[in-house]
Amino acid sequence: MSFETTATIANFGGKLLKLAHQSKVTTTQMKLNLFLPGTASSSKPAPVLFYLAGLTCTGDNGAEKGFFQAAAAKHNIAVVYPDTSPRGLNIQGEDESYDFGSGAGFYVDATKDPYSKGYKMYSYITDELPSALFSSFKELDGSRVSITGHSMGGHGALTLFLKNPGKYKSVSAFAPISNPSNCPWGQKAFGGYFGEDKKDQWAAHDATELLPKFPGDTDILIDVGTGDNFYKQGQLLPENLEEAAKKAGKGVKVRYQDGYDHSYFFISTFAADHVEHAAKYLK
Amino acid sequence: MSFETTATIANFGGKLLKLAHQSKVTTTQMKLNLFLPGTASSSKPAPVLFYLAGLTCTGDNGAEKGFFQAAAAKHNIAVVYPDTSPRGLNIQGEDESYDFGSGAGFYVDATKDPYSKGYKMYSYITDELPSALFSSFKELDGSRVSITGHSMGGHGALTLFLKNPGKYKSVSAFAPISNPSNCPWGQKAFGGYFGEDKKDQWAAHDATELLPKFPGDTDILIDVGTGDNFYKQGQLLPENLEEAAKKAGKGVKVRYQDGYDHSYFFISTFAADHVEHAAKYLK
Repeated sequence: MSFETTATIANFGGKLLKLAHQSKVTTTQMKLNLFLPGTASSSKPAPVLFYLAGLTCTGDNGAEKGFFQAAAAKHNIAVVYPDTSPRGLNIQGEDESYDFGSGAGFYVDATKDPYSKGYKMYSYITDELPSALFSSFKELDGSRVSITGHSMGGHGALTLFLKNPGKYKSVSAFAPISNPSNCPWGQKAFGGYFGEDKKDQWAAHDATELLPKFPGDTDILIDVGTGDNFYKQGQLLPENLEEAAKKAGKGVKVRYQDGYDHSYFFISTFAADHVEHAAKYLK
Repeated sequence: MSFETTATIANFGGKLLKLAHQSKVTTTQMKLNLFLPGTASSSKPAPVLFYLAGLTCTGDNGAEKGFFQAAAAKHNIAVVYPDTSPRGLNIQGEDESYDFGSGAGFYVDATKDPYSKGYKMYSYITDELPSALFSSFKELDGSRVSITGHSMGGHGALTLFLKNPGKYKSVSAFAPISNPSNCPWGQKAFGGYFGEDKKDQWAAHDATELLPKFPGDTDILIDVGTGDNFYKQGQLLPENLEEAAKKAGKGVKVRYQDGYDHSYFFISTFAADHVEHAAKYLK
C-alpha cells in the first residue's frame, strides 16, 4: 500500500506530490496527484477534498488546469486527484473509445466480463485509495473528507456521496452526468460495465435515483455552463436531478452559468466556490 | 491585419478568444490567445498585459496553466498570450531543437540567414501584433500596456521593456533568462539568429546590458524558484541583473522563492502578484 513519490513540486505555499502505487482492486499501478497545503502536518492534519476528473482525463488535468490549489491553500485543505480508470489491463477494445474503458471508469465496480477484471474504480476511490493515503500521509485528516468532480467525475462525486452517507462531509460537481441511466454516455458505460440489469445495478449508480433514498437533507452545489455542448446534447440532465430533489425535498442548487462550456476554463472559474463549499463542512 | 476568432470561451466573467492572423513580419499565420475581462468595452477599454511564454510553449500554456485570468478579471486587465516563434517556415533544422527555431524565437529579429527570413518576433510583439490588436479590438486600451513573461519570455519582457522606454507601463518576469550573452541558451540563440556580433547585436538584446542605459528609474519584479534546475545550471543568471541594477542605481527586486521549480505550478502561484504589479501602473 505504500506510495512512490515521483515528483514533489512547490505550489501555492504547499506541495504537489506525484504519486504511484500498486492497487489490489484494479490489479494495476495507479497514479495520482496529492496537493498538501503548507500548513498540513502530522500534528495539524489537513482535511481532504477528492476531485474526480472526467472522460479522457487523468489525475493531471485538475492539478494543472483546475486551479483548486489556490483556494485549497487558502483554506488549508488537501486535494486528491486520482486517475479515471485502471491503465494497461490489456482488455481488448479498452483503448478504442474516449467514453468507455481507459480514461472512462465511471467510478463503478464492473460486474460484466471482461471489465470485471480490474475496472473497480468505485472500490478504489471509496476504500483502497483513501485507506492507503491516510495510513501513509499523516498530514491528512481521514475523518474530514469531501468530494467534487467534473462531468463523469461529477457523476462519481454525487453517487459516491449519496451511496455512503456520512463518508463525505459535502459534495459538489461541475457539469455532472446527473442521470446516467437516461443519457448516451451513461447507457454505454453501464451497459458495458454492468450489462442490462437496469433496475438494480444501473439505479445503484445513478444520482437521480439515489438522491431520494439519501437519509437526511443534502446541500449539493452544482455548476453547469449554458454553452456546454454536452449539456445541450442531453448528456448531463441536471434538470432530472433537480426534479428528483424537489420531489424528495432535498437540497440541490444548480447554477446555470451563462455561456460557459465544458472545459477547464469553466472549472477554473468556479473552482474557488467549490473549495469554499467543501471548506464550510470540513472545518 | 484582421483576426480570425477560432473560439470564444467564457472564463472568469470575461472571455478568452482564440485568434489567428496573417503576419507580414513573420510571413506566417500566427496564433494567440486574448483574454478580455467582462468589464471591457469600447467605451471602457481595458489596459493590456502581454505575457510572453518560454521555450517550447505556444500562446496556450499561459492561458491554460498560468492562471493570470483570475487576477486579470479582478483588476479589469486584458491579457495577450502570443506564440513564441513563427510556425511552418520550413527552414531546415527549424524543428530539431527545443531551444532554437520553432518555439524558441527569443523575441528578437534574426539578422542571420536563414532565420532572417521570418524570425522577427521582436517586431511582431512590439509593433505588428499590438497595432493589429488595438485597431481590431476597441475593448483594448493601447495607451496602457504592460509586459511580463517566463524564462525565454522573461528575457523577452525585460528586453522589450528596456529597449522601448515608455512603451510599457511596467515589467515583471518569472525565472527570466537575465543575461543571455552569458548562458548556453542565449549564446545558442544569439549565435544562430545574429551570428557573432556580440558587442552590438547580442548586447542590444541582453537585459543585463540594457538596464544601465535605461533612462530613469525602474521597478522590476522578478520571481525565481530556488529549486529551478535551469537557475541552478546558470541559464537564468538573475544575480547578474541584480548586480547591474545595483551599480546603475536601478530598481530590480528579485524574489528567490524557496523550493519552487521552473514549471507552471511556480508561475500560477505568483501570477496574481505579477498582475497586481502591472495593475499598479496600468490604472
